[in-house]
Amino acid sequence: MQPINLQEKFSKFADHWHPRVIGTVNDCEIKLAKIAGEFDWHHHEEEDEFFLVVKGGMRIDFRDDAVVLGEGECFVVPRGVEHRPVAENECWILLFEPAGTLNTGNAVSDRTVQHPERI
Amino acid sequence: MQPINLQEKFSKFADHWHPRVIGTVNDCEIKLAKIAGEFDWHHHEEEDEFFLVVKGGMRIDFRDDAVVLGEGECFVVPRGVEHRPVAENECWILLFEPAGTLNTGNAVSDRTVQHPERI
Repeated sequence: MQPINLQEKFSKFADHWHPRVIGTVNDCEIKLAKIAGEFDWHHHEEEDEFFLVVKGGMRIDFRDDAVVLGEGECFVVPRGVEHRPVAENECWILLFEPAGTLNTGNAVSDRTVQHPERI
Repeated sequence: MQPINLQEKFSKFADHWHPRVIGTVNDCEIKLAKIAGEFDWHHHEEEDEFFLVVKGGMRIDFRDDAVVLGEGECFVVPRGVEHRPVAENECWILLFEPAGTLNTGNAVSDRTVQHPERI
């Protein structure tokens, strides 16, 4: 059997804010994304969302606070909490969240990825 | 707010085969563990289990195959599949699995951690 190599999976795509699915754990999915710049403010009504920085750094803004994540740092954004991911430079992240969680949460836009590809 | 720093969390414990919980995502948990040597053969009746190697290397044995994971490599062991984690040298892993998943699955023993601590 072959392991899932994160670097190899990240090499398969270059676009930003477009998560890919690399695995399923019961009703949750493991996703990878490359991000750069500011995303849209949003929240997830029913889903907690785990962020782990694999490469680079990012910030998660909240309306009254923020958390800065470097490589090897992670954070769980609880459901219902409005947030905005930001990366000054390109950042690679691993996400763990319930299957079907939209990247834009309640704020559906042209950045919404309804059906992320499995890679 | 403060990020969860994996290195800092791993520095809080030294024992092997004793997972700690660092976060919850809906009905799943994110756990860290240090492993060394051979664990017990077991399966999880209802739970898929995601392994990510943070430091070192490990192997997951199956009855008819095996997968070798280095740093930055991961694997999902599907529910119902008998497996045995093995690490020749100490290895640090991150796990995602449904809350309540026992480390020993169906093979309850003195290595079973019924209620892993949250760190």
